Amino acid sequence: MSKDKQEKQFVKEITPQSEDFSRWYIDTIKKADLMSYSPVRGCIVFKPDGYEIWENIQRELDSRFKETGHRNAYFPLFIPESFFQKEKEHVEGFNPELPWVTEAGGEKLEERLAIRPTSETMVGHMYAEWINSYRDLPLLINQWANVVRWEKKTQPFLRTSEFLWQEGHTAHEDEEDARKETMQMLEIYRDFAENFLAIPVIMGQKTPSEKFAGAVDTYSIEAMMKDGKAVQAGTSHYLGTNFAVAFDIKYLDRDNQHTFCHTTSWGVSTRLIGALIMVHGDDRGLALPPKVAPLQVVMIPIGPPKTREQVIACVDGLYGQLKQAGVRVKVDDRQDQSPGWKFNEYEMRGVPVRVELGPRDMENGQVVLVSRITGEKRVVAQSQIVEEVQKLLTETQQEMYDRAKKFRDEAMTSADTLDELKGFLQQKRGFSLSGWCGSAACEATVKDETGATSRNIPFAPEVQKSTCLVCGEPAKHTVVFGRSY
Amino acid sequence: MSKDKQEKQFVKEITPQSEDFSRWYIDTIKKADLMSYSPVRGCIVFKPDGYEIWENIQRELDSRFKETGHRNAYFPLFIPESFFQKEKEHVEGFNPELPWVTEAGGEKLEERLAIRPTSETMVGHMYAEWINSYRDLPLLINQWANVVRWEKKTQPFLRTSEFLWQEGHTAHEDEEDARKETMQMLEIYRDFAENFLAIPVIMGQKTPSEKFAGAVDTYSIEAMMKDGKAVQAGTSHYLGTNFAVAFDIKYLDRDNQHTFCHTTSWGVSTRLIGALIMVHGDDRGLALPPKVAPLQVVMIPIGPPKTREQVIACVDGLYGQLKQAGVRVKVDDRQDQSPGWKFNEYEMRGVPVRVELGPRDMENGQVVLVSRITGEKRVVAQSQIVEEVQKLLTETQQEMYDRAKKFRDEAMTSADTLDELKGFLQQKRGFSLSGWCGSAACEATVKDETGATSRNIPFAPEVQKSTCLVCGEPAKHTVVFGRSY
Repeated sequence: MSKDKQEKQFVKEITPQSEDFSRWYIDTIKKADLMSYSPVRGCIVFKPDGYEIWENIQRELDSRFKETGHRNAYFPLFIPESFFQKEKEHVEGFNPELPWVTEAGGEKLEERLAIRPTSETMVGHMYAEWINSYRDLPLLINQWANVVRWEKKTQPFLRTSEFLWQEGHTAHEDEEDARKETMQMLEIYRDFAENFLAIPVIMGQKTPSEKFAGAVDTYSIEAMMKDGKAVQAGTSHYLGTNFAVAFDIKYLDRDNQHTFCHTTSWGVSTRLIGALIMVHGDDRGLALPPKVAPLQVVMIPIGPPKTREQVIACVDGLYGQLKQAGVRVKVDDRQDQSPGWKFNEYEMRGVPVRVELGPRDMENGQVVLVSRITGEKRVVAQSQIVEEVQKLLTETQQEMYDRAKKFRDEAMTSADTLDELKGFLQQKRGFSLSGWCGSAACEATVKDETGATSRNIPFAPEVQKSTCLVCGEPAKHTVVFGRSY
Repeated sequence: MSKDKQEKQFVKEITPQSEDFSRWYIDTIKKADLMSYSPVRGCIVFKPDGYEIWENIQRELDSRFKETGHRNAYFPLFIPESFFQKEKEHVEGFNPELPWVTEAGGEKLEERLAIRPTSETMVGHMYAEWINSYRDLPLLINQWANVVRWEKKTQPFLRTSEFLWQEGHTAHEDEEDARKETMQMLEIYRDFAENFLAIPVIMGQKTPSEKFAGAVDTYSIEAMMKDGKAVQAGTSHYLGTNFAVAFDIKYLDRDNQHTFCHTTSWGVSTRLIGALIMVHGDDRGLALPPKVAPLQVVMIPIGPPKTREQVIACVDGLYGQLKQAGVRVKVDDRQDQSPGWKFNEYEMRGVPVRVELGPRDMENGQVVLVSRITGEKRVVAQSQIVEEVQKLLTETQQEMYDRAKKFRDEAMTSADTLDELKGFLQQKRGFSLSGWCGSAACEATVKDETGATSRNIPFAPEVQKSTCLVCGEPAKHTVVFGRSY
C-alpha cells in the first residue's frame, strides 16, 4: 500500500490542536483531501478540494486588480543566470534557493537558466524594451504563475518548493506615484484578507533585515495562526530605482529628459490556503469562511426508507432555489452512509452551513440549518430558505472574522524586555508589540534568544513603546515580534 | 535602441499576406502588441492584449469542463527522470525535447528532474495512490499549467519552448467509458473552436505515426490557416491501460478483482491564439471574433472642437448602456490622434465593431456602427444601440465562421496521386482528402515528396477514396493531407 493510502487510513481521528498543532494541521489537510505529497522533494499536489480554494482566491483578487487598472501578462519561467547578477541584493537573496536548468534538448546550455523564484529581473528586462515615454506610464501588470524556491524545510501550502502565486509589477514616473501604488496594493491585500478570508491582519513595514532582496521598502500584512505563530499573508514592495538602474528602465519625461522609472512589486501565494486552515480550523477539522468555501451549503435528507423519496424530492426543490440564488450547494443523498457520518464528514471538510430535512420537517414545511462554526441550529420555514441561508452565511462570515480577531487580540502582549518576551512566548505563543532601537544587532538578539522575528512595524500599533526591549535605549519603532512559519 | 523598439518602429505597414504570409503574421502580432520575444530561446512574453485572449479562452473552456463534471487540480512542474522510463513510447517521444534541472539549492541533484512537457507520468503516479475502488471512478481532473518542450524551430504562439495549456487526465473502469470520455472532450473542442473561435475544424483520428507518444488512439481537430497550412487545434487521447500498467493504476472492481484503469488525456494550448490570428486576420491586421475578442466595441467621437464636449457626453451615455448590457467596450477620446488614425488602429487590432458619433449624428439621434470584417456601415438610432450592437456582434461572429469555412472548403482537393497532390500544394497550398493504404511507408513517401503530413482520418470525409495515392493499392482510409505548423 502506498504511503498516501496508509496515511489516509490511519487518520481516523484528527489530533487535537492542543496536543500537537502541527499534527492537527497535517491530519486536517489529509482528511479534508486538500493535497497529496508528491514524489518531488518539497512539492505537493493540489487536489481538487484544495485547488478550488485557490480558484476562489484568484477570481476575487483578479477582479480587484482589474478594477484598479491592472492587466495580466505572462513572462517566461526561465531566467538567464546573468540577469540575477544585475541587482546585487537580489542575487544574494535568491541564489541559494534556485534550481538550475543546465541541459535541454540533448545539449548542455551555454548559460544556465534559473527557474524563476520571482520575476523582477525578467520583467525589468522587458519593461526596458516596452517603456519609451511618460505616456507609457504607469505600466500596471500582474502575472499568475508558478514559482520555485528550493526550500530546506517545507510544509504543505505554507512553504513548498514550487508554489502558485500572483506577482504584480508596475513602473511609474516618480517615487510618489510608485509609493501610492505600493500602498494601494497593500490595502487591497488587507481588505481581501479581512473581508474575504475573514483573517484579521496587521499592516506594517518590514525592518531592513526582513525586506525583499532588492527593495527599498517592503510592507506586509501579518496574520496570527491558532498556535500563535505568524504567517506573512501578503507583501508589497517599493523598489525605488534599483531594478530600473539594473535593467535600464528609462523613459522620456515631460521635459524630454531620460529618467529612470520607479517600480513596485507585490504578491500573495498559495500559502494563504495554509493560513486559512490554521486561522479557522478546530478539533473537528477544517472551517472555511463562506466567501472562499468551494461548497457553502450541504443538504442532507434524513429519515426512514418509506418517506425517503418524498424527502429527497422536497430537498431537491429547495436545492434548486439555493442554486438559482447563486449559493454553492450540493445534496448528499448517498444511502451507504448514515446522516451522522455525513454530519461529521462535512464538518471536518469545513462546509459553513448544513441543511437537514426529515419527514417531520417536510410535514411542517420547515427545514433545519446548522452552522459549522457555532453549532447553532435554526428551524426555518422552507418558504424562507434562500433568505435564511444567505443570512446565516453572512453571519458566519462575520462570526469567523470576529472569533479570529478576538483570538489574536487576546494573544497579543507588549513585552518591555527580552525576558518578558521569552516568558510570554513560552506560555501563550502569540505576538508582542515591543520597542526597538532600530539596530540590526538588537533584532538579531531577539531572534537568537526567543526564536521570534520582527514581523513588521505596524502603521497603527495599539501601544507605543518608548524603549528597546533588548538594549533599553530609546525606541525608534514599536515592532510586532512573533515566531513565524 | 532595443531590438523590440526597433521592430515596432519599422513595422509601419503590415506586409500583405499574398506577399509573405510569415512576415504578415509577425508584423500583425507585433503591431497589435500581442507579444514580445524574450531573452530566453524560443520563449515569448504574452503581453496584456495577447494574454487577455487566452483568459477568454480559459474562462469559456473551464466552464465547459466543469459542466461535464471535471475539476481542476495542480501537479508539480518537475518530473523525476525515472518516471519517463516507465512508458517506453512516451520516453522516446519526449526525451529529445526535455530541459533538465540538475542542480538546486546549491547542490547537484541525485536524480535529474525534467520540466514537464505533459503530465501523464506524474498524474499516473498520483492516480495510483488515489484510486482504490470502482467508487473512485471515473476520476475527472483538468490542469491549467505551463509546459516546456525544447523546440528547434519556434514561432510565436504556434510553437514556443514554454507554452500555456490545459491538460485533462481521466481514469475509468473500462475501455467503453474511457473512449466515451475521449470523444466527449474532442466534441467539446470542436464545438468550442467552431462556435467560440469561429474556426471550422476537421475532426478525426491520427494515424499511428502521428499519435501521441504512449496513446492507443489519438484524435484531433485540424484547422486551416489562410496560407493553406494546418494547425492541430486540440487533441484527445485514449491511452488504454498503457499508463495504468506503467504506473500501477489499479482499482478493486465490482467483482472485488484488482483491475487496471483505462485512462485518457486531452489538451489545447496557447497555439490557439496563433490559429485565431492566421484564420481570421487580413491585410489590415488582426480580426477577432466577438466572443473571444478582449475588446468587442470601440467608440470614437468625431467632429470639431466646438461640439467636442457635447459629443463626448453623448458617447459616454451610450457607452454606459453598452457596458451595462455586458458588452466589452471602450471609448477612445484621445485628442492627440485623428479619428482616421484611430479607425486604422482599431481595425489593425481586430476590434469587431467600431461606433462613430459626430455632431450631426448627435443632432439626428443616431450613431454609426462599422463592422471590422465586412466594412459595412449601419446608421442606427441611439435608442436602439444595445440591440443593434448585439445584433452586429452576433452577425459578425457568424460571418467570420462562414468566411473561414468557405475559404477552407475552397482550399480542399481530393488528389488521387502523389503528382496531383504535389501540383495542388504548389499552387493553392490547402488540404487534400486522399486515399491511403494504411502503410507507414506510403505515409512517409507523401511527407518526403510533398512536405505534407497526414493531418487526420476524418470521421466524416466529404469524399471516400478507393485507392492509395502512393501505391495505388486499395485505400484503407481517406486521409486529410496538408502541410502543417
